[in-house]
Amino acid sequence: MDPQFSINCDLGESFGRYSLIDEESLMPYIQECNIACGFHAGDPVVIERTIKSAIRYGLSIGAHPSFPDLQGFGRRKMNIPKLDLVSILRYQICAIKSLTECFDGVLNHVKAHGALYNMAAVHKETASAICEAVISVSQDLLLFVPFNSVLAQEAQIYGLTVKYEGFIDRAYHQDLTLVSREVPGSLIEDPEKACDQLMEMCNNNRVKTIEGSFASINASTFCIHGDNPGALDILRYIHEKPWAAK
Amino acid sequence: MDPQFSINCDLGESFGRYSLIDEESLMPYIQECNIACGFHAGDPVVIERTIKSAIRYGLSIGAHPSFPDLQGFGRRKMNIPKLDLVSILRYQICAIKSLTECFDGVLNHVKAHGALYNMAAVHKETASAICEAVISVSQDLLLFVPFNSVLAQEAQIYGLTVKYEGFIDRAYHQDLTLVSREVPGSLIEDPEKACDQLMEMCNNNRVKTIEGSFASINASTFCIHGDNPGALDILRYIHEKPWAAK
Amino acid sequence: MDPQFSINCDLGESFGRYSLIDEESLMPYIQECNIACGFHAGDPVVIERTIKSAIRYGLSIGAHPSFPDLQGFGRRKMNIPKLDLVSILRYQICAIKSLTECFDGVLNHVKAHGALYNMAAVHKETASAICEAVISVSQDLLLFVPFNSVLAQEAQIYGLTVKYEGFIDRAYHQDLTLVSREVPGSLIEDPEKACDQLMEMCNNNRVKTIEGSFASINASTFCIHGDNPGALDILRYIHEKPWAAK
Amino acid sequence: MDPQFSINCDLGESFGRYSLIDEESLMPYIQECNIACGFHAGDPVVIERTIKSAIRYGLSIGAHPSFPDLQGFGRRKMNIPKLDLVSILRYQICAIKSLTECFDGVLNHVKAHGALYNMAAVHKETASAICEAVISVSQDLLLFVPFNSVLAQEAQIYGLTVKYEGFIDRAYHQDLTLVSREVPGSLIEDPEKACDQLMEMCNNNRVKTIEGSFASINASTFCIHGDNPGALDILRYIHEKPWAAK
Repeated sequence: MDPQFSINCDLGESFGRYSLIDEESLMPYIQECNIACGFHAGDPVVIERTIKSAIRYGLSIGAHPSFPDLQGFGRRKMNIPKLDLVSILRYQICAIKSLTECFDGVLNHVKAHGALYNMAAVHKETASAICEAVISVSQDLLLFVPFNSVLAQEAQIYGLTVKYEGFIDRAYHQDLTLVSREVPGSLIEDPEKACDQLMEMCNNNRVKTIEGSFASINASTFCIHGDNPGALDILRYIHEKPWAAK
Repeated sequence: MDPQFSINCDLGESFGRYSLIDEESLMPYIQECNIACGFHAGDPVVIERTIKSAIRYGLSIGAHPSFPDLQGFGRRKMNIPKLDLVSILRYQICAIKSLTECFDGVLNHVKAHGALYNMAAVHKETASAICEAVISVSQDLLLFVPFNSVLAQEAQIYGLTVKYEGFIDRAYHQDLTLVSREVPGSLIEDPEKACDQLMEMCNNNRVKTIEGSFASINASTFCIHGDNPGALDILRYIHEKPWAAK
Repeated sequence: MDPQFSINCDLGESFGRYSLIDEESLMPYIQECNIACGFHAGDPVVIERTIKSAIRYGLSIGAHPSFPDLQGFGRRKMNIPKLDLVSILRYQICAIKSLTECFDGVLNHVKAHGALYNMAAVHKETASAICEAVISVSQDLLLFVPFNSVLAQEAQIYGLTVKYEGFIDRAYHQDLTLVSREVPGSLIEDPEKACDQLMEMCNNNRVKTIEGSFASINASTFCIHGDNPGALDILRYIHEKPWAAK
Repeated sequence: MDPQFSINCDLGESFGRYSLIDEESLMPYIQECNIACGFHAGDPVVIERTIKSAIRYGLSIGAHPSFPDLQGFGRRKMNIPKLDLVSILRYQICAIKSLTECFDGVLNHVKAHGALYNMAAVHKETASAICEAVISVSQDLLLFVPFNSVLAQEAQIYGLTVKYEGFIDRAYHQDLTLVSREVPGSLIEDPEKACDQLMEMCNNNRVKTIEGSFASINASTFCIHGDNPGALDILRYIHEKPWAAK
């Protein structure tokens, strides 16, 4: 069993008058957060508040850049020329990096959001744009990538240090793509089931897929979705396990 | 006569498909630029292109933050609570600072844009928000301020190093406020007149006002508006004077 | 006692991934709704869904135009030239009017949102901009106005038919301005208190102010804020009264 | 020779401080305009000014809806669920329709913009979304479609009246897709060449393609791009021909 794993969560996803969840309630149970940069969610007030809280809870801070699509919450694929996309991502990463440093924190990693993350998993040019943006900001930034993905391959070419990411609360297909949110059962809300999936990934490097068999997966950071209604219960359940990340 | 003065220009004010002027044509004749941050103008592609050009031309780079108002080009007063405004400005300054560093440049100064600049000249809370944002990013950043303004006073309280700014191509009132753009003659397009105004400010610390007499002004950096149709001619005219900034 | 009064609510205030309340739960208890137009809240998907629900519940539909300020939820004053403001409001009213007609409804009224509403209550130019926008779209549109306000006066000059609006769940000052949301007690969450305030306004044309005495008020439509945590309880409480609007 | 053809132009594509061309200079030479709705370009002030000018010049007015992408000028493909896209387009068409009626005009047609137009030419779901939006606003609206396109087929299924559109100033491929703007020669700036292409399409129902042979095309309205530097010269050249549309 690997005591080295960590749990990450996408945070800073409020906007102006709007908020999705009480993000701070999750902070005691996670080790890393990925902070929205203002392009799919987040605004300067929200972002700063999140950075300050994350520092107070001792979380590793990541930038969570996205396609520029507030209305679609960054979940709609966009066809952006590679060089433009590099600029769009670099701007977001730079904003979060420098803001984090204003509050005496340090930017630890980058994780792409939503449609950008999904495209980068399978599409070389998108993956390459992400890598180019990250490395131009700092070679010390970690990049969170899906195991066995095109993004993981690109990151290796660029010489970036990656962290493989698994999902605690989402059902997998055999090829390690996530089951679409439209499909019943795609979101795991039950603490025991979620914890089982996490343990399989941590201890046995595999995940039970919706097709019924196991797929190999190698991951050291595990994402839980803050807007999963069961998120807090799942995190507490995991937290009480003796082997849990602390 | 003071050979130490410099000329600054607001740049990076294109957006997507839109551009206002050929900004690069002005770069050989100025020493400082204030780069839009994406809130009144500028987008990540535009901002990066401008930073790269500015570095190539050896310009001192400043951030040019604004109210969040793309439709109004940052020229409409907005009533934003102070702490929110601090966050909004800090985000913009941070983005430009970190991007500049990505391209091996260094952020030199901050100059507020449009309605924000005008409000800060006379309104303590707005001035204070700007100072708080700047100093939290770095104590080494210069702040461009109008002479004898509330912003200049606030900056002193905050311990910020300021640079007083005069305008080469805008007519002044006796109290050193700028004549409204609606008034004929508010924009000086004639090279000789503009150069005369600059020389009066540089050599005699005064400016002839629209009311007909002189007002005292102390400034070491002088702004010319890129979208002034006479901008390039004015800059060349000044440049050919033996005393000009180089 | 006036059985003719109606209750209105600002709706369609979700945006993309974000929502504030379960708006449909309020619909059985109100007679009019004011639908966000996409400038402070609302997007095309949200707006249509709201129009369809409003029609299904038999509500009178109004447009709820705002300053263009999604980040600030239309609650920040903006200084927009009058003619520009007319265009900005006309666009919003037109969009809602034509969409409502697509679904076989009819636009009944207009009510300004947030900072725009507050400015129009006291500022002639803002009030005039609203009136000009409304009347240019249709002379048949009602305009909701605060009693004794500058907007009410302007509407009369423009020949618009107005409906005076009172607030069920907000504390009043003696001059009929609303107590700032920052002040404790400014929002009335208790059903009995809210109902008392409504009854005083309906039956006795007066409201008890935070200063302790009564102020005269004449209103025939009464607003309750959907994001008041007590909104549904208040509405049900009022609904069960024998004299309530049906 | 067909004297019935008309020339259309995309207009209203300024935004706030930004403008692309002097649109009004083209108006004497065209018969139809497609007005940006605020999602890829245009803002309420720009849109109204364009509608008023178009009415003054006697142009047929169309709505020119787009993906919601101001930064990308609507030229980036977006993957939007069909029902959401219908709402997004309906909102835009409704806004222009109702605004046009405010100024005593009437909305004549709809033409999709940029990436949306290109996707609809080949992608059934996108084409279907456009048709559904148009017909729900009014069955009397014409839809501009490329000849032999998926959009043309869908429009027939929906019972919409279409107008086939050819391009005066863009080079064609053999399959009637437009040559990418990146390819030299894709934009025709020479008046004589443009006029020849128009005449071939009008008189002989064919167009010479970049591959060197002719392709059959049937069109009765012909688009010229306002931001083509040769646009005004081309329009005047065509105008002086005896057979030109008047």
